[in-house]
Amino acid sequence: MNATTAVVDAVPSPVRLKAVAGPGQPEPTPALEQLYRAFESEMLVPLWTEIGGLMPSHPRSQAAAHLWRWSRLKDLAAEAGRIVPVGRGGERRAIALANPALGGRPYATPTLWAAIQYLMPGEDAPEHRHSQHAFRFVVEGEGVWTVVNGDAVRMSRGDFLPQAGWNMHAHHNAATEPMAWIDGLDIPFAYYTESQFFEHGRNAIDQAERGTPERSVSERLWGHPGLRPLSQPDAPQATPLLAYRWADTDRALGDQLALEEEGHAAGQGATLSPGHAAVRYTNPATGRDVLPTIRAEMHRVRAGARTRSTREVGSSVWQVFDGEGSVQVGERQWAVSRGDLFVVPSWQPLRLQAAAGTQSLDLFRFCDAPIFEALHQHRVQVDPD
Amino acid sequence: MNATTAVVDAVPSPVRLKAVAGPGQPEPTPALEQLYRAFESEMLVPLWTEIGGLMPSHPRSQAAAHLWRWSRLKDLAAEAGRIVPVGRGGERRAIALANPALGGRPYATPTLWAAIQYLMPGEDAPEHRHSQHAFRFVVEGEGVWTVVNGDAVRMSRGDFLPQAGWNMHAHHNAATEPMAWIDGLDIPFAYYTESQFFEHGRNAIDQAERGTPERSVSERLWGHPGLRPLSQPDAPQATPLLAYRWADTDRALGDQLALEEEGHAAGQGATLSPGHAAVRYTNPATGRDVLPTIRAEMHRVRAGARTRSTREVGSSVWQVFDGEGSVQVGERQWAVSRGDLFVVPSWQPLRLQAAAGTQSLDLFRFCDAPIFEALHQHRVQVDPD
Amino acid sequence: MNATTAVVDAVPSPVRLKAVAGPGQPEPTPALEQLYRAFESEMLVPLWTEIGGLMPSHPRSQAAAHLWRWSRLKDLAAEAGRIVPVGRGGERRAIALANPALGGRPYATPTLWAAIQYLMPGEDAPEHRHSQHAFRFVVEGEGVWTVVNGDAVRMSRGDFLPQAGWNMHAHHNAATEPMAWIDGLDIPFAYYTESQFFEHGRNAIDQAERGTPERSVSERLWGHPGLRPLSQPDAPQATPLLAYRWADTDRALGDQLALEEEGHAAGQGATLSPGHAAVRYTNPATGRDVLPTIRAEMHRVRAGARTRSTREVGSSVWQVFDGEGSVQVGERQWAVSRGDLFVVPSWQPLRLQAAAGTQSLDLFRFCDAPIFEALHQHRVQVDPD
Amino acid sequence: MNATTAVVDAVPSPVRLKAVAGPGQPEPTPALEQLYRAFESEMLVPLWTEIGGLMPSHPRSQAAAHLWRWSRLKDLAAEAGRIVPVGRGGERRAIALANPALGGRPYATPTLWAAIQYLMPGEDAPEHRHSQHAFRFVVEGEGVWTVVNGDAVRMSRGDFLPQAGWNMHAHHNAATEPMAWIDGLDIPFAYYTESQFFEHGRNAIDQAERGTPERSVSERLWGHPGLRPLSQPDAPQATPLLAYRWADTDRALGDQLALEEEGHAAGQGATLSPGHAAVRYTNPATGRDVLPTIRAEMHRVRAGARTRSTREVGSSVWQVFDGEGSVQVGERQWAVSRGDLFVVPSWQPLRLQAAAGTQSLDLFRFCDAPIFEALHQHRVQVDPD
Repeated sequence: MNATTAVVDAVPSPVRLKAVAGPGQPEPTPALEQLYRAFESEMLVPLWTEIGGLMPSHPRSQAAAHLWRWSRLKDLAAEAGRIVPVGRGGERRAIALANPALGGRPYATPTLWAAIQYLMPGEDAPEHRHSQHAFRFVVEGEGVWTVVNGDAVRMSRGDFLPQAGWNMHAHHNAATEPMAWIDGLDIPFAYYTESQFFEHGRNAIDQAERGTPERSVSERLWGHPGLRPLSQPDAPQATPLLAYRWADTDRALGDQLALEEEGHAAGQGATLSPGHAAVRYTNPATGRDVLPTIRAEMHRVRAGARTRSTREVGSSVWQVFDGEGSVQVGERQWAVSRGDLFVVPSWQPLRLQAAAGTQSLDLFRFCDAPIFEALHQHRVQVDPD
Repeated sequence: MNATTAVVDAVPSPVRLKAVAGPGQPEPTPALEQLYRAFESEMLVPLWTEIGGLMPSHPRSQAAAHLWRWSRLKDLAAEAGRIVPVGRGGERRAIALANPALGGRPYATPTLWAAIQYLMPGEDAPEHRHSQHAFRFVVEGEGVWTVVNGDAVRMSRGDFLPQAGWNMHAHHNAATEPMAWIDGLDIPFAYYTESQFFEHGRNAIDQAERGTPERSVSERLWGHPGLRPLSQPDAPQATPLLAYRWADTDRALGDQLALEEEGHAAGQGATLSPGHAAVRYTNPATGRDVLPTIRAEMHRVRAGARTRSTREVGSSVWQVFDGEGSVQVGERQWAVSRGDLFVVPSWQPLRLQAAAGTQSLDLFRFCDAPIFEALHQHRVQVDPD
Repeated sequence: MNATTAVVDAVPSPVRLKAVAGPGQPEPTPALEQLYRAFESEMLVPLWTEIGGLMPSHPRSQAAAHLWRWSRLKDLAAEAGRIVPVGRGGERRAIALANPALGGRPYATPTLWAAIQYLMPGEDAPEHRHSQHAFRFVVEGEGVWTVVNGDAVRMSRGDFLPQAGWNMHAHHNAATEPMAWIDGLDIPFAYYTESQFFEHGRNAIDQAERGTPERSVSERLWGHPGLRPLSQPDAPQATPLLAYRWADTDRALGDQLALEEEGHAAGQGATLSPGHAAVRYTNPATGRDVLPTIRAEMHRVRAGARTRSTREVGSSVWQVFDGEGSVQVGERQWAVSRGDLFVVPSWQPLRLQAAAGTQSLDLFRFCDAPIFEALHQHRVQVDPD
Repeated sequence: MNATTAVVDAVPSPVRLKAVAGPGQPEPTPALEQLYRAFESEMLVPLWTEIGGLMPSHPRSQAAAHLWRWSRLKDLAAEAGRIVPVGRGGERRAIALANPALGGRPYATPTLWAAIQYLMPGEDAPEHRHSQHAFRFVVEGEGVWTVVNGDAVRMSRGDFLPQAGWNMHAHHNAATEPMAWIDGLDIPFAYYTESQFFEHGRNAIDQAERGTPERSVSERLWGHPGLRPLSQPDAPQATPLLAYRWADTDRALGDQLALEEEGHAAGQGATLSPGHAAVRYTNPATGRDVLPTIRAEMHRVRAGARTRSTREVGSSVWQVFDGEGSVQVGERQWAVSRGDLFVVPSWQPLRLQAAAGTQSLDLFRFCDAPIFEALHQHRVQVDPD
């Protein structure tokens, strides 16, 4: 952690062991105490005292279910916009969700980073690249272009913009209003597994790259359904498509609910459960997740409907994109509306409920499931109703 | 963590931020202080104060290079054998290496668990299964059989015995002497990513399973080079072969050095570098690593030779199997001999040197590289000589 | 082959060998003649007499480059529409291209079937399924729906409609005009490798399936760029998307040529070669070819441009979709226009040239490359200009 | 085909069609006859006359089940050894099985080549390489080394020696006796799909390569069970192991039958069916088939036992390695003993029966199943007893 902060990190400390009576524990005797002292001096810890915590019968997350209100985030980001400059060193005006049970670290969940980023009119965020995978999601607003290896990508409401690791990227706000959006990254996972690299790029991008095209080069090459440009190299590990537009996502979700309503034989099973439509953003070159470590999806719950209570290995961050409803995560429950963000810790049951009326509840979600799928450790369990 | 220990864990705490002047940092003003107070109350942390620590230019491990002496480990394990019983609850008489820079937790590295396990004559370790992947490696001794889903697998000096997640297993010592060996698991990784499951099996295995066969069923089915039993199901995610015998490993390493010496055209490149032979234990059904999260290898350095200085994403644990020599990890250097264990943190350079004379230096190694390869984050760098 | 035709097939015959002098051949002696007689009676053939033909230095196709004119095909199909009924037994009013060098068999190339299919107003083609993979491509016309497992799929000019093996399908013409289109299948490959299965379905599809929706269920689920419906099962071996619409294909090709013209850094390499745009139809669940044995693509050559001369392992069938130009295949050359079909045998060089003027030359292509890629036998060679 | 032989090939011929009454066929009228004449002149063939033959309900092989006696093959090969030299041009003294139903072509099945090769004492077969995949199997004898890219590989009774495409190879007989063995290749498949390449190498290999090592370099690097040499490049498409020795194969088969006899819980299912043991030769770098187009296996049927009647997509060639018994392929049945070869056409049921007594029946098998598995077209059906 950086010395400029007072975020509390675990101070390295010697092993300390205490002999305590209990099931599965050896008798606390002077000999045992002496053995434990020797363990301490040799940097050793027995399994038998730790197994209950270390190897539980199912995941018991250290993280807490928690909700952040969008209005409050936006206000604070706007204030940061006034007093915190953007530039080399700090790199981005991004403010991260800190899970209250993770020691004050800027981790939404043990593996995932989620932040609100804010760019003032005319501002640039300097170019850099990092091995951490990232994306942006726009819950409202427009006017910023993210420039990835020289390709300027428009950011507008409802768009999902993946940013695979080790690509140079900068942002610039070409509009007259500030713009806020959500960043998601695997920073905590990369930090914990100690696998990250970072490099600065140019301090300012070229004038030629400051264009504001409606569609990026990546979309013109890769954004046509089921069509692959023959000129492009073979299956990349992360998506070559840099923008997934809201118009497409909206239509896909609408089609699923319409198919369900029509009740046609071939449309049965179009939704995940009655009233619950969902799409996953995928790499068009592989059909797999957009990023090796991050899954991203958009969900729509029909007005008045609720989803099945489901638990899953790994953690998720959700943001309400539109509509109103309520969310239950384990023991916690919140009423939610546009922009609100909440986290679902590993193996905690989640249920979504859309408010009655006419408007569906739309939610963006990202999670770390690709990690567990790649390692054959993924599990999902739908609770009986 | 279990309440019976005093191992210090990070206590959940609120965010605490301090405005400090510095490159890339906003001016410490009252307004900034006020903003930081608001961040704290909303559970928010800015990127600009954290980026230096969170996103370094290359991995800077929290773990320390460290060495544990085998003689000391064995003595303490023997003492534990005298006063700590083995049974349900504590499950195993295993004593874990605690990296001195990881807060006293029983983690050899951020992702890997390494322990010495000890079983007295006639003792049983009760049956259980867990999603964590495991293996045993025997640096000396014999007499214990590990029983995996009813298949009794002999453990002898030099043998490598993988134990893929979610298979029931127990151990029993059929000899008249105690036996010690090394356990390796991905417990810290599973704990951190909150992806683990655990179940008890039977308290005592059947008499029929207490046999002491020379070869396990798994070896009789899968232990023939390049031959696959047609009766067995398709490519499992983790190896169906439960024992890799020293005689095979020894011969494979010897063949590489002999090919190098013979200097035949077809044998050029038989070794990793002059005098450095190495084999990886692989799943015969896939040719890939034995376990989804753990790589295991045996290395042999010819007497007097030294390896290239190499750094790699991810962490390793090494155990000297035979011979004498020295080891350099970053700034640290140790003379080593049979049984000594040391850890190599992520991206720290490692160099091995065999003592002059006639005996080669043999080392067993395990590491977390399969995680990074699966996620396309693996990097290796050989330093110029 | 069916007894109702006089298509000549190779009659099984005994081996007949003749001793002939020549390089690499044994001396023709009475002893050799006697040996060859013995080979004949034992059903044996030596390699040394056959190797020149059987194992050439590169593929020398038995097939011929050949062109079929669309106007002639359509006239004959229309005449068949008048006098040949469609129904169970004959199954389809399809008329196949017979490569002139393949013995009168209905094979466009050694591995590929290409036919014109014709359906009169109000007609149905009965339901069946087969393990052979198929597709339809519409060079002109509209009005037919193909019904795949109950999902009615509109067929219109420029659409590509894959039909993976073993799915039930029927067609019905809901319009007042006849309609013609092109069928492509791997019938010769399946016939030669003796790997095919076939089953009849219902003689008539339900009234409910006779709808004429603008978009099929498959498109509503899978036709959104980069978006995967969570309700659908995991990565199928062949595409779940049953229609690739011309509007998308046209735009993708136009984008590539526009990027080339704009000359932006990020757009360099948008085309295969100057003036030559191309897309491949892919399975959105995998990013790979739509069918395990058949690749399908659309190419656009800018007015006045010509492509590089290229040879490839395996054979292709091309159909001009729009525009005018000329085509060179090995020694053969033809002027081509809308609807004309031609075949390119294995390893014969192909070059396309668009007529000067303003209109580009658009061509649909299908080939057997996925077979060779799956077996690691694919090679492509671009000849020097 | 080569001009030096009289093997009859299908002469290219024009389409000839005849209107014949029948189910699913149009009324034979003058108009139909006129249409068929037009089809003929335009190189067109209708589906409706061909569908019965081209698209059967299940594979109906053109090939015949057939048996070749080893004693007869060996005698003829020996005679060829006396009068047919080995050298550049003819390349190999190999004599191929010609399936009696495949027009006298040197094809054991539609896709597979099987030949007896014969080398006199002191003889060399010149170096070449080809994209066709090959192997050798030795039913008896010893003394020849095959030299693959300079690596000399001993050939002895019971050994399986794969030879992946595009590797230079030569053979030399270092013994004082002639030696015969079996070659298997995918020549017919490569010929039919027109995907083959061929190059000559040196006319004579170096003296240094004429060694007669007990173990090849490939075995010393890759022949250790479950161990991968770290010095070697990543997963090749075809096996880097050039010899699978009989001692290993024999032990693997014996272990399966012994496990079955012991009846231990963990050994249940060690055999394919009671008394039927089998192993597949696999690429140790991938666990998959040794060659992309050819599967090879060894089967052992316990004395007195018989296998289940099984049919499979694709064709097989079998050779009796040892023992006596009988074989039923569809309607055909033969008594068999050492060295006898027989072919099983696609989808014909096969059943093996070992003679009563004490000796098991051992059979080597190779087939084209990897082609169908790669293309997702493989099917196996075990008939009810």
